[in-house]
Amino acid sequence: VCLGPLPVDAVGGDALERGRAIARESTLEVPEGVASSEIEATLLGRVGDVVPGPEGVTEVTVEYPLGVFDGSLPQLLNVLHGNISLLPAVRLVDVVLSPALLASFPGPRFGIAGIRERAGEGAAARPLVAAALKPVGLETSALAELAAGFARAGIDVIQDAPGVTDQAPSRFRDRVFRVAEAVGEANIATGGATSYYVNVTGPLESLAERAALAEEAGCGGLLIAPGLMGLEVMRALAASTRLPIMAHPSRGDVGPNRDTGVTPELWYGLLYRLAGADAVVYVNAGGRFSWSIGTCQALNARLRGPLGSLRPALPVPAGGVQADDAPEWFRRYGPETLILIGGSLLARP
Amino acid sequence: VCLGPLPVDAVGGDALERGRAIARESTLEVPEGVASSEIEATLLGRVGDVVPGPEGVTEVTVEYPLGVFDGSLPQLLNVLHGNISLLPAVRLVDVVLSPALLASFPGPRFGIAGIRERAGEGAAARPLVAAALKPVGLETSALAELAAGFARAGIDVIQDAPGVTDQAPSRFRDRVFRVAEAVGEANIATGGATSYYVNVTGPLESLAERAALAEEAGCGGLLIAPGLMGLEVMRALAASTRLPIMAHPSRGDVGPNRDTGVTPELWYGLLYRLAGADAVVYVNAGGRFSWSIGTCQALNARLRGPLGSLRPALPVPAGGVQADDAPEWFRRYGPETLILIGGSLLARP
Repeated sequence: VCLGPLPVDAVGGDALERGRAIARESTLEVPEGVASSEIEATLLGRVGDVVPGPEGVTEVTVEYPLGVFDGSLPQLLNVLHGNISLLPAVRLVDVVLSPALLASFPGPRFGIAGIRERAGEGAAARPLVAAALKPVGLETSALAELAAGFARAGIDVIQDAPGVTDQAPSRFRDRVFRVAEAVGEANIATGGATSYYVNVTGPLESLAERAALAEEAGCGGLLIAPGLMGLEVMRALAASTRLPIMAHPSRGDVGPNRDTGVTPELWYGLLYRLAGADAVVYVNAGGRFSWSIGTCQALNARLRGPLGSLRPALPVPAGGVQADDAPEWFRRYGPETLILIGGSLLARP
Repeated sequence: VCLGPLPVDAVGGDALERGRAIARESTLEVPEGVASSEIEATLLGRVGDVVPGPEGVTEVTVEYPLGVFDGSLPQLLNVLHGNISLLPAVRLVDVVLSPALLASFPGPRFGIAGIRERAGEGAAARPLVAAALKPVGLETSALAELAAGFARAGIDVIQDAPGVTDQAPSRFRDRVFRVAEAVGEANIATGGATSYYVNVTGPLESLAERAALAEEAGCGGLLIAPGLMGLEVMRALAASTRLPIMAHPSRGDVGPNRDTGVTPELWYGLLYRLAGADAVVYVNAGGRFSWSIGTCQALNARLRGPLGSLRPALPVPAGGVQADDAPEWFRRYGPETLILIGGSLLARP
């Protein structure tokens, strides 16, 4: 964690004291002297390195014993960034998971290789491109027509926008079949292998049914926004569906240059991958969200880099990427990238 | 939303431009000129008041048309604080829901009156007190003994700590029966009506079973941490269980004095109530989390105040509340409060 300067009137102490308070808060959650000496010795978090940095920020390493975890994602989140997310000037900036902890999380089932394989032989050596179906308000027939056009143009992945869910102009149950059919017909006509990722974000009670309908309709994958549903919901979905999962960043509530929360690269790069996302959409540098290229590169590295036996997940930079700039982003991020070109593609004739 | 000063290099414009960008981002999510004029006219968010305030912060009101919602909580979150949660210096500070939107959310099934009723006749005219079972590492027999002691002492609500889940020393399946039994026996001995809220936070696949076991065991309620599971998961749980729900604040990632995110009073006071929490734990002023009393009072007001036909939910201030200070907090917050006394009670002989 990084500990920033505390606001006036905040309870605190020096960095070591604050680190110890975090270690206690996230494990025993009782004052010193309450737990038995055996529990204090075996289950209390421990402060490791305390490294002062610039601008009054101190990086403090906290180690958590395996015994406080239960193999579930919710309890992992509770220990890493549970109650301490409510403290001022505490930011989670790095996480190293032990092999024993990692073993609880299968991660992506398809990952980069699986998604590339599904994009067809022609896609084996080139970067991948995605496009989004929007805006909300378009009727299903118009969305299907848009999707067919994208597929004929050779777009690899077509996804619903996160705000296109189950509104009156396009009910999920209609859209999933008609858009999948339109994409399938275009694939037959062109010999292509465009995938349609339908947005299953919605009432939890409908999730299993929507995922089943997506399989039945021949969708290429599922889009879900874990920030809206719960990271645990995506993990459970990934464990139960036969389709690849694309995670949308809506309500992630993270960003560079904050002094609280979790860094974007940990949230989207580590935790979404841990929770089984095969592809992870994030808001790209240079777009309308003002994220830095360093953040995006760190996020890419977390998605693709070594993480126990977990497969690499596919980075999907999005959010104001201009169609003309796509080659430049591939040059920067490498070919193992799915560039999502949204509005700027729609703005073209 | 409140718009703060932008960091250097951030994309922006003046407050009106930023407000319009937010309104577009949260509805159509396409550049001007892409959607039909009919969709632009009916489904685009609109900027209302733009009120400059102190320290360069501007309060901007954005109105969203009913047609972008689908009656689900995830889509409500997506519109209120979806992609815009990834922008710098944007903070959601107030939400007014139309009657048509509110009608989609039944809210608390028990609420303050229901929880008070379950606390027995003697509790009708007095404030309510809760205590937590912790630390992690205690065996089920020790937790049951602790619970029995709390029940004999007349504590109204006993709850698992959020970090006490399904670890080896106390498996959920053992704990739910043995602690409920210990509390039940104490109730018979004293004529009391102490409730045990078992922590069902854990793998999504186990949630329905754990809730069913809690009913079977005679638990008084369920504890869940929506920040760890998803707010939508709590809503679905509330819709399916016959027990009251207490929401724990872990990983809420909110606080006063931030320039991003959602205010604590909206997150815990409005959205948790909307999602069906009967009682909402939050970190009290004067404790170890440095929240202000103003924030806590605003949160209480959101939980208890008028909200369509939704029942009021019970505020549960916690987090470093000392047993001796409980009367003072009841004086400040009023009797419709459940004070959670955690570690300081455990520290007593």
